[in-house]
Amino acid sequence: MSHLQLLDEYFTQHREKHLEELKEFLRIPSISSLSEHKEDMLTAANWLAEALKKLGIENVSVDETKGHPVVYGDWLHAEGKPTILFYGHYDVQPVDPLHLWESEPFNPEIRDNKLFARGSSDDKGQVFMHLKMIEALFATEGTLPVNVKFIYEGEEEVGSPNLPAYVEENKEKLAANLIVISDTGLYAPGKPAVCYGLRGLTGVQIDVRGAKGDLHSGLYGGGVQNAIHALAEILASFRNEDGQILVDGFYDKVLPLTDEERQAYQELNFDEDALKAEIGVNELFGEKGYSYLEQTWARPTLEINGVFGGFSGEGIKTVLPAEAGAKITCRLVPNQDPEEIVELLRKHIQKHQPAGVEITVSEFDKGAPYITPFDHPVIQAAGRSYEKVYNVPTAYTRGGGSIPIVAAFDQILELPVVLMGFGLNSENFHAPNEHFHLENFDKGLRVLGDYVHEVSKLSL
Amino acid sequence: MSHLQLLDEYFTQHREKHLEELKEFLRIPSISSLSEHKEDMLTAANWLAEALKKLGIENVSVDETKGHPVVYGDWLHAEGKPTILFYGHYDVQPVDPLHLWESEPFNPEIRDNKLFARGSSDDKGQVFMHLKMIEALFATEGTLPVNVKFIYEGEEEVGSPNLPAYVEENKEKLAANLIVISDTGLYAPGKPAVCYGLRGLTGVQIDVRGAKGDLHSGLYGGGVQNAIHALAEILASFRNEDGQILVDGFYDKVLPLTDEERQAYQELNFDEDALKAEIGVNELFGEKGYSYLEQTWARPTLEINGVFGGFSGEGIKTVLPAEAGAKITCRLVPNQDPEEIVELLRKHIQKHQPAGVEITVSEFDKGAPYITPFDHPVIQAAGRSYEKVYNVPTAYTRGGGSIPIVAAFDQILELPVVLMGFGLNSENFHAPNEHFHLENFDKGLRVLGDYVHEVSKLSL
Repeated sequence: MSHLQLLDEYFTQHREKHLEELKEFLRIPSISSLSEHKEDMLTAANWLAEALKKLGIENVSVDETKGHPVVYGDWLHAEGKPTILFYGHYDVQPVDPLHLWESEPFNPEIRDNKLFARGSSDDKGQVFMHLKMIEALFATEGTLPVNVKFIYEGEEEVGSPNLPAYVEENKEKLAANLIVISDTGLYAPGKPAVCYGLRGLTGVQIDVRGAKGDLHSGLYGGGVQNAIHALAEILASFRNEDGQILVDGFYDKVLPLTDEERQAYQELNFDEDALKAEIGVNELFGEKGYSYLEQTWARPTLEINGVFGGFSGEGIKTVLPAEAGAKITCRLVPNQDPEEIVELLRKHIQKHQPAGVEITVSEFDKGAPYITPFDHPVIQAAGRSYEKVYNVPTAYTRGGGSIPIVAAFDQILELPVVLMGFGLNSENFHAPNEHFHLENFDKGLRVLGDYVHEVSKLSL
Repeated sequence: MSHLQLLDEYFTQHREKHLEELKEFLRIPSISSLSEHKEDMLTAANWLAEALKKLGIENVSVDETKGHPVVYGDWLHAEGKPTILFYGHYDVQPVDPLHLWESEPFNPEIRDNKLFARGSSDDKGQVFMHLKMIEALFATEGTLPVNVKFIYEGEEEVGSPNLPAYVEENKEKLAANLIVISDTGLYAPGKPAVCYGLRGLTGVQIDVRGAKGDLHSGLYGGGVQNAIHALAEILASFRNEDGQILVDGFYDKVLPLTDEERQAYQELNFDEDALKAEIGVNELFGEKGYSYLEQTWARPTLEINGVFGGFSGEGIKTVLPAEAGAKITCRLVPNQDPEEIVELLRKHIQKHQPAGVEITVSEFDKGAPYITPFDHPVIQAAGRSYEKVYNVPTAYTRGGGSIPIVAAFDQILELPVVLMGFGLNSENFHAPNEHFHLENFDKGLRVLGDYVHEVSKLSL
């Protein structure tokens, strides 16, 4: 039997047991952004460390950082063979608004061959697949065809503030020939993708303050600046009707799309009507002159993530609000620099400063964008593994989302990054009712198992 | 002794007792806008009815409406003399944000000769003054020099939705020669005012909906409309840099200020620096070409009272929000029509409809603006009573706030409205730490007592 047939048999036999273990992992509410979940973060890290040890992985440790810990482990007995570093994250997004969940976010439930739980797709489910792939290789072959290292962090959803320092400090320990990250998705159901670029992220919170307290809108209204109105004017100034960002210099360093890329994206025949139906809108809206894939893969954005100010309760309160605020994040593309973009945002806000208010700008964590040539051998090998299991050509794509650590790995460890993901865009990663299609859990295990064999044949 | 000397003696002797009674009234949390306070509203109405009965007021009733009840009472034994209808409201504003109160909103406390409590100034404190003035007249003179009627409502803070119907149905019962409303303020500390005009009110809530649920800003960002961004564009479109409202037709029916009015306001020597210091802003902001008093007394406004959407918790959540909303109210001046203005707002929003979202506009309750000539005898008599007690010339002013019922009284009962108020603009009516300067409580009691004598001399 081929290694792929052996793996297939093993995964089929152990499917129920594997899913029960995954549910156990998903029950830990490891929300990294909320301080009340600090203990749960440690529980999740320890769960992962124990799981690695049970596989036979060595040098397993739960390493402290200034934030949530990093879980590390390795197995380095494939002499003369390449070393793969596997990365993922065990932290998850917050769950609000809770009332929109059909089943509890931390009580995993399988419905219609989908596993519903916060983290099922992003990213605990995919981290878990690395582990079970290793388990299967040891069980069916008694050894591994490559050397492996594992690094799982707990701060991806808050911008990985402490991982770059950790990677820098552990540069030798983490040295490898490539890194495999499973935190992206297929191109479409049944259509696998290898992602060769990612957008970066930067953001600011804008706090507007007018009077020292809320005022009566009858007595003062018309003569004193309204903090919400001032904020709305700043927010509206960021974009024109054609969806172009109006921040001076915003597009200056954007790497233009090549004709080959535009052609390749067009050949994917992206179905805009299906997207509209899926998300429930009558029309799409984005930067004029670019297709939807171009807009979301290769063009930068400025997104308002939240806004608050004044009275938002039941009925009417005729208040002239003294305070208002908004959270803004930008998705960046190569070769935009997060620090530079924040400076441009600050200048823009200063330039559009309304009368009668004070403005405070505070920064969120940043992540650089990343791109790698798609003809690199480790990328092409990944494409072959997908094709063997899914039986269709692999799409070479970019990701609209951000994995801040990708650029750090690129810069610090100087190794190619292979984004092999198994999610689907419809899986509500950051929204209520997150789920993971188990079809891709099953196929993905086989793809990963095949990939280590593909890599073992490469001279890196 | 003159009636004023007698009143002075009486109020001095009974001051402590009166303040204790007022505190009792203020302890009832009669917040009309929150349904959980329905029972408290009834308690406050009954308290008021009992207080009227104790005075010797007759035909006292707590009359049901579709909302909170109206308290009525009368005393009609001054044959051949004018009848004064006294109006006020026993409902109060919500108290959030609670943490900014220095003492509890419904646990009245006197500090520095100011009475701190929700409703102390707006309007329970002033309603209570009507009652104690009557008590003092009966005690010192054994009778009243005029006929009196009382109507106290419980829905002023939510736009008096049911009072016009009540007044219409009880037109005969409420018939009078004038109505005295104590719900406005002095011009400045030590400087009394008779208010001869008020702004009206109308408003809408704008709800914006994009996708059927929040989306991941990485995966979809750049290709799908952001509900908050769309809302911000609508909100910003309402006003230009000169503070002018850009809603087509908004100013068409505005009664221009006369040269006499502009001159009179200018002579009040309004202290903008003192205002800035009081409310804590470095500069004022309003419609270009008008003074602060003109802006707040005689020009209409469009104020954003609240805004909400997306993630407003701790830290960052890179969400592409599906929903956002804002509450907007306009202060209207003679001769703007609230219904017409709402239609203009709807048209404006439609005209500025951003791509990729659906918008719902819902209306709040409305109140018409009001104005009366300031040389009317009942207005001039009020000016005289103020001058006797305060020993300075009375200012004839307009109010920037809205008492929706004023226009209804004007239209239904066809009687002149005399706005005799004793508050100060700095008293945080609709904000935390509402308070009432007891100096004006003391003086106001004497003014009101004198005024009924002034009115008794008029042929109306």
